[in-house]
Amino acid sequence: MTYQLHYWPGIQGRGEFVRLALEAAGAPYVDVARLPASEGGGARALGHQLTTLAPPPFAPPVLAADGLVIAQTANILLFLGARHDLAPADEAGRLWVNQLQLTLADLVDETHDTHHPISSGLYYEDQKAEAKQRAGHFIAERAPKHLGYFQRVLEGGGGWLAGDRLSYADLSLFQVTRGLEYAFPKAMAALAPRIPAVLALADRVAAQPPIAAYLASDRRIPFNEEGIFRHYPELDA
Amino acid sequence: MTYQLHYWPGIQGRGEFVRLALEAAGAPYVDVARLPASEGGGARALGHQLTTLAPPPFAPPVLAADGLVIAQTANILLFLGARHDLAPADEAGRLWVNQLQLTLADLVDETHDTHHPISSGLYYEDQKAEAKQRAGHFIAERAPKHLGYFQRVLEGGGGWLAGDRLSYADLSLFQVTRGLEYAFPKAMAALAPRIPAVLALADRVAAQPPIAAYLASDRRIPFNEEGIFRHYPELDA
Repeated sequence: MTYQLHYWPGIQGRGEFVRLALEAAGAPYVDVARLPASEGGGARALGHQLTTLAPPPFAPPVLAADGLVIAQTANILLFLGARHDLAPADEAGRLWVNQLQLTLADLVDETHDTHHPISSGLYYEDQKAEAKQRAGHFIAERAPKHLGYFQRVLEGGGGWLAGDRLSYADLSLFQVTRGLEYAFPKAMAALAPRIPAVLALADRVAAQPPIAAYLASDRRIPFNEEGIFRHYPELDA
Repeated sequence: MTYQLHYWPGIQGRGEFVRLALEAAGAPYVDVARLPASEGGGARALGHQLTTLAPPPFAPPVLAADGLVIAQTANILLFLGARHDLAPADEAGRLWVNQLQLTLADLVDETHDTHHPISSGLYYEDQKAEAKQRAGHFIAERAPKHLGYFQRVLEGGGGWLAGDRLSYADLSLFQVTRGLEYAFPKAMAALAPRIPAVLALADRVAAQPPIAAYLASDRRIPFNEEGIFRHYPELDA
């Protein structure tokens, strides 16, 4: 069985959390919008396809397989985690990993809003002054609070966020850490001494063979200024 | 068994989605921070208690029961939905309700940021100009897009969001609808003709006997300007 992932073709975005789980699981998938246009790829085809899926998703990413059509990143990961052993099988462990994922989703939302504090429908250039303000608070308060939380969780555990093995929450914390390092290199360098376990976890995830292979492949879209984690030097100060 | 809910005592906030599910289920619970201070209530006691719970939550609401400590609203509802028959039992239905809840959570976050677009750490009064901008985009684009989505979902179904019975996603859509009506009465009046199924669902939820009894009780905290849904007339235009 091959999964179909529906997500914007030019960015990591929220789809990247799903890509990382599929890659870690070694699960066959087609990144539909990244196919050539002649095979149904492209952003316009994606926009059309989203209107034909049932039950209807509000927004991508969407994962389709076995007659299931699943949207919302954390929901897709809940499904993949159970099916591909990327989360504990017991109720407490499953809820804990979902809880961590939702906490990371909040951090992702807050990161997005550093460059779009007024509206996603406006260009960054139209909200630069407000972005500078919001990014300042994000760097001073929110990023340290969030990453400090994950640091504490890791200090109390066995090298992974849940138990003694990799879960999809680890994959997601890796992604958020690399994203913040890309977007805010100065701020993250200043924060590094306070979050050694988070940085070590990110390195450990990156060294997992299937993840290392993925990151070295052209399936990994580079960070860019269309995604969630954008490097605008003026916001990193 | 009695659940312990840990949430800020003076607001509906995100805790209200949990309260509604507990009330609909008729599940016994203690709203810990709303107890008298002599019995462990109050915001200060809550702040202390959050640091003692394990595994550690990032933020309230937190639900404790049977040795489980569960945080993140959608995660708590996933748990309660399965345990109290407030979601379909099959995988597809369970994921669908979780997906709807996460979509509503995004709308809740966006609503919050209409009055706090720059920082949760600043007063509304310190970000009024930016709030006016963000609320304008929210009213013109985001609220119609989100509520229009739920309208379409309801048009394709049997009167409820998932199948032919009440789920926790219905309770949450009720709460969001009432909240937006409180915060943006003019904008919601203008939007009403386009979302009749959403408004009918909210009325149907409100009329469920356990919910009607809850709403009439003093357990239901009134909307106010400390919560997520705040009525600032200058933003509703």
